[in-house]
Amino acid sequence: MSSLIHRRKTRPVFVGGVQIGGEAPVVVQSMTSSDTRDVRATVEQIRELEEAGCEIVRVAVPDEAAAAAIREIRSLIRIPLIADIHFRHQLALLAMNHGADGIRINPGNISPDGIREIVRMARANGKVIRIGINAGSLEKEIFIRHGGATAEALVESALKNIRLLEEMDFDAIKLSLKSSAVATTIEAYRLAAGKTDYPLHLGVTEAGTLVQAAIKSAIGIGTLLYDGIGDTIRVSVTGHPVQEIGVAYGILRALNIRNVGPDIIACPTCGRCEIDLAKLAQRVEGELKGMKSPLKIALMGCVVNGPGEAAEADIGIAGGRGSGILFKKGKVVRKIREEEFVPVLMAEIAKMAAE
Amino acid sequence: MSSLIHRRKTRPVFVGGVQIGGEAPVVVQSMTSSDTRDVRATVEQIRELEEAGCEIVRVAVPDEAAAAAIREIRSLIRIPLIADIHFRHQLALLAMNHGADGIRINPGNISPDGIREIVRMARANGKVIRIGINAGSLEKEIFIRHGGATAEALVESALKNIRLLEEMDFDAIKLSLKSSAVATTIEAYRLAAGKTDYPLHLGVTEAGTLVQAAIKSAIGIGTLLYDGIGDTIRVSVTGHPVQEIGVAYGILRALNIRNVGPDIIACPTCGRCEIDLAKLAQRVEGELKGMKSPLKIALMGCVVNGPGEAAEADIGIAGGRGSGILFKKGKVVRKIREEEFVPVLMAEIAKMAAE
Repeated sequence: MSSLIHRRKTRPVFVGGVQIGGEAPVVVQSMTSSDTRDVRATVEQIRELEEAGCEIVRVAVPDEAAAAAIREIRSLIRIPLIADIHFRHQLALLAMNHGADGIRINPGNISPDGIREIVRMARANGKVIRIGINAGSLEKEIFIRHGGATAEALVESALKNIRLLEEMDFDAIKLSLKSSAVATTIEAYRLAAGKTDYPLHLGVTEAGTLVQAAIKSAIGIGTLLYDGIGDTIRVSVTGHPVQEIGVAYGILRALNIRNVGPDIIACPTCGRCEIDLAKLAQRVEGELKGMKSPLKIALMGCVVNGPGEAAEADIGIAGGRGSGILFKKGKVVRKIREEEFVPVLMAEIAKMAAE
Repeated sequence: MSSLIHRRKTRPVFVGGVQIGGEAPVVVQSMTSSDTRDVRATVEQIRELEEAGCEIVRVAVPDEAAAAAIREIRSLIRIPLIADIHFRHQLALLAMNHGADGIRINPGNISPDGIREIVRMARANGKVIRIGINAGSLEKEIFIRHGGATAEALVESALKNIRLLEEMDFDAIKLSLKSSAVATTIEAYRLAAGKTDYPLHLGVTEAGTLVQAAIKSAIGIGTLLYDGIGDTIRVSVTGHPVQEIGVAYGILRALNIRNVGPDIIACPTCGRCEIDLAKLAQRVEGELKGMKSPLKIALMGCVVNGPGEAAEADIGIAGGRGSGILFKKGKVVRKIREEEFVPVLMAEIAKMAAE
């Protein structure tokens, strides 16, 4: 954790064996895009997510068959599973019966009575509930009174539903306040952070395909994390969910909150660059896919500036025409030929990662 | 500009005809990766950048031939051109002689006497100078005294060099303080913003390939812009620089600072989704490449939730199996068949963009 970030104190909750809030590290989660009823496809996707570093997974539960599938899915995966419930509270009850570790409800489309039934079962079985406020499906009365899904409206809905759970002596609560508008998202979480100490699940919803989703999520989630707000994060990407994990750890790494996986420092190249640095960077990224060691690896286009500019890197290459320099922590190790760049770098990285 | 962002007041400077700072919109810039001596390749790249929305371009000037090439390049492009100078101040003089609208110097590798010569010519010719502090090439004395390239060290170098220019009655100054460490970058700019009112050029340096560069830049630049800091931005991507412009406008759009180009709101898809939304989103993104109209376009995987969740979108499709719903501002327009999704959407968008 960066010394600059003073993290907001929250009360811890446990989703299966995973702590969220309190002193726990910021937890990375994702959601499957498979049909939950297709157990094989869903388990395959969750295993890919686990491999990439996902720590909690959520699945959609649109009907009884999806709820029932949770039992088998749960037995075949290692990380806790959350059931995502809309409209019908009965599906939450079924999902918990079938082993879901937690429930995400959208109070915009479940009645207070339905929520109370969910709470009763969650309380009896030690399950966690996320109150998942969404700008697109806010309670009508609140939406109208605020003249739209403003940050204040999202927070009012959240606090109202927190009270409903608290009145039943239930406090295994997480909270999210998502909007597809980044500025509204930031403002809503800031307001909520000042009014409640439940752990916050951060995310920008409907963020789009990879690059634009990375931008929106990095600003929305990153700005809040930099202010010490946020206990678990979910990046939304339209596409295979494993992409979400790469973006999530990228955000955490950029702020020194959790350093998982290599940080590749590569110059944008300019008229001084004499090698195809973009190709080199892509090859190195490909070779390092799945590595969890937090090495800083520099790929620089210029022998003169490279080693100095990337002195903070654990290891790096500065490329010139036909040959380059291997350096560690800003110190030149030796000259290497261009065709050796990738194999030499990989061998050195493997050694360093093993240490 | 979002009503939440109170922009820091800076004194305006002019790069060619483009105002930076003061009340001007945040200016988007980039840097060519071509060999500057290759006029044809460089002009081609700059024209692509202009087309994508780049408003100022920088080129590397590693030698006399590159400086001389500026004259022809400048005559063939529409946006102001900055010469990027390291080590030899004479190259800055040459670049200005050949028509560069501004100079970026790195005080870490040019002597104070060299800088004074650059200032004399810039003053006589109405050119702008960016003091481009870089964590990787800080003045040795400052680096050692601070025990590294800390935010304080970057700011000390900046202020020292600002004084050097001010002592010569020169104030057409922009300032940047870049580090490949995002947290250091944010901290350095915040400190500088409290100590000087020159316009700030924001960027995270050596950010890597597209997705990770988007994440680092969005957090670094986005956090600062959200605080009202920043007058011009440059995203660094290892790869073709035109990618930098897409990320830059993505950042500005996410914070409602400048709304240029379509904002695609697309759900991450889940077990409820019955269409290949990722493919649809990619096709729509491809079709809209180059569009400058700031329409919000929603692509949702679910007919039940879609139109409501994306009510803030100007137009959208919510897809079901084999058919979907076209909606505008949350209101259903009509049902359409799946094969009509893209053509119908494009026709409607073209109409709306023309209005």
